[in-house]
Amino acid sequence: MRATFIYGAGDVRVQDAPDPTLRHPTDAIVRVTRSCICGSDLHPYRTLPARPTGKTIGHEFIGVVEEVGSEVTTVTKGDFVIAPFAVSDGTCEFCREGLQTACEHGGFWNDTALGTAGGQAEAVRVPFADGTLVVVPGSVDEALYPGLLTLSDVYGTGWHAAVCAGVTAGDTVVVIGDGAVGLLAVLSAKQLGAERIILMGRHPVRTDLGREFGATDVVAERGEEGISAVLELTGGRGAPRVLEAVGHLPAYEQAVGIVRPGGVISRVGVPQYREGPIGWSLFGKNATLTGGPAPVRAYIERLLPAVLDGSVQPGRVFDRELGLEEVPDGYRAMDERTALKVMVRP
Amino acid sequence: MRATFIYGAGDVRVQDAPDPTLRHPTDAIVRVTRSCICGSDLHPYRTLPARPTGKTIGHEFIGVVEEVGSEVTTVTKGDFVIAPFAVSDGTCEFCREGLQTACEHGGFWNDTALGTAGGQAEAVRVPFADGTLVVVPGSVDEALYPGLLTLSDVYGTGWHAAVCAGVTAGDTVVVIGDGAVGLLAVLSAKQLGAERIILMGRHPVRTDLGREFGATDVVAERGEEGISAVLELTGGRGAPRVLEAVGHLPAYEQAVGIVRPGGVISRVGVPQYREGPIGWSLFGKNATLTGGPAPVRAYIERLLPAVLDGSVQPGRVFDRELGLEEVPDGYRAMDERTALKVMVRP
Repeated sequence: MRATFIYGAGDVRVQDAPDPTLRHPTDAIVRVTRSCICGSDLHPYRTLPARPTGKTIGHEFIGVVEEVGSEVTTVTKGDFVIAPFAVSDGTCEFCREGLQTACEHGGFWNDTALGTAGGQAEAVRVPFADGTLVVVPGSVDEALYPGLLTLSDVYGTGWHAAVCAGVTAGDTVVVIGDGAVGLLAVLSAKQLGAERIILMGRHPVRTDLGREFGATDVVAERGEEGISAVLELTGGRGAPRVLEAVGHLPAYEQAVGIVRPGGVISRVGVPQYREGPIGWSLFGKNATLTGGPAPVRAYIERLLPAVLDGSVQPGRVFDRELGLEEVPDGYRAMDERTALKVMVRP
Repeated sequence: MRATFIYGAGDVRVQDAPDPTLRHPTDAIVRVTRSCICGSDLHPYRTLPARPTGKTIGHEFIGVVEEVGSEVTTVTKGDFVIAPFAVSDGTCEFCREGLQTACEHGGFWNDTALGTAGGQAEAVRVPFADGTLVVVPGSVDEALYPGLLTLSDVYGTGWHAAVCAGVTAGDTVVVIGDGAVGLLAVLSAKQLGAERIILMGRHPVRTDLGREFGATDVVAERGEEGISAVLELTGGRGAPRVLEAVGHLPAYEQAVGIVRPGGVISRVGVPQYREGPIGWSLFGKNATLTGGPAPVRAYIERLLPAVLDGSVQPGRVFDRELGLEEVPDGYRAMDERTALKVMVRP
């Protein structure tokens, strides 16, 4: 089959790779229908040191089950499935609590220890198929592919941001970041009843979509200016819920400046930093810092019906569709911000 | 009157000071019955650069109202009152929410902007008397003084740690720190129904009291060894609720190592650091970091009855009582850890 490999910053290649095969009786093989490129794929695309051997990449895909191991019971050949960005056994203490990203036996795609490869490929071996995959019932129209694909990561991640922040009806919410996750955090906050949603982003094409998803205000400024602008919009007190969907330190610092005393900062952008300000700036406000890798597996059943009936359209974050061979162009486009999010058709 | 001043690290003096007078119609003058020295007073006692003029100190006291301004309505001359460590107007948005430490017009004791002096004195001017003070009903027996005095800070602060962490019946809780706040965090967790309470501290006199307050396990090790010990006690997963009652970076780092995925770190020790690890070490676990300066004013009514009827005895954290003139000895004793917490009798 063909699959995507990264060899270092700016160096993504589509190459021949062995077809995946079942290794464990709990595995499934999924033929990929659509995959995509994630904002978090851009981190290695920008920083990975050059390496002689490529590393598979990609962690979001939907597809059709081609083969299952002897112990797989809830997924069968021919099922249309959503693959979350984390592999989870579905049975451990954390999975039962709905925190599948802390699964005691699972992990992520492209993980040497777990022996997983990447989703930007023609087919993928899925460990713990019962725990990991979610079957989409009925026949699946191609028009639904983009929306279903967002359930593998970005929609569930935006939802996680809003849920961890405790967004409820009537709330004032700030979303930092106008990438796909930020925009879907806006959509999620709206679904949870937020009344005022301030989106911080400076790409009008994106923030316009944010407004369609429910943003009531857009703040293009960053840093101290951005903080001042949000404080002005919130009576000088700050926002009770701040969803940080970027992952860089300045976005976190912005969140600390914006959060209202007693409020919550909910991070879902993978932090590209180890340390950050958590002294009096956070403590003095009694502000809470929460969030983490979204257990999207836990949210799919909740979010799926509205995607299937078209009442929400999270798939609108995809603004480009490319064939698998063109994946390197997709990375370039996302890196240069000429595309918001690229869907890949194997 | 006599009052305590700090002139720099290790230099605390009791001196003459002007008697406090009413400045605003919302003020009260309180004659101090008992005050005390706080673990947080040790921070300036250890680090404050020498200064030519002294600065008042102390922020925990109980006393009798001596005089009230014309606009004070809920507090009258002769009332026995508890003064929380924060001044609050009782009417702003934050006070109404029970976050009095974010009061829009209040502040702390020994605050130049607010014109407040310190509690380690014979009398204190209390701004916003209606908002700040809590009247203890009935006649107050001297035996109750220690318990009532803890409600001005350390008991409410330990309670805040437990409440912010979301401690509920059956929980496993780790408390980091065997100072007065840590010990009262143990008591609070016990009152909230925690089943297992692991106290991290290495002063047997203190941890023994912690056991009497409800600790089921004591871990004397610190750092990596302490983390390993707690992981071993919690099936390798860590504790869902970690109450950090120290305020130094190693205690926070310990909390990050100990917290279970999806768990909560609740800080109430004033951070003596600006930055700390909040990257993957915290995010990867979906751990929540919360806490801050405790709005003890919000908790006094809840905690008072059990103190008055003797069913809890938080006042046991006081292991020494000194006269006001001996306050410098009290600082020395707490700094050298020969006293846990010193009560001061003016």
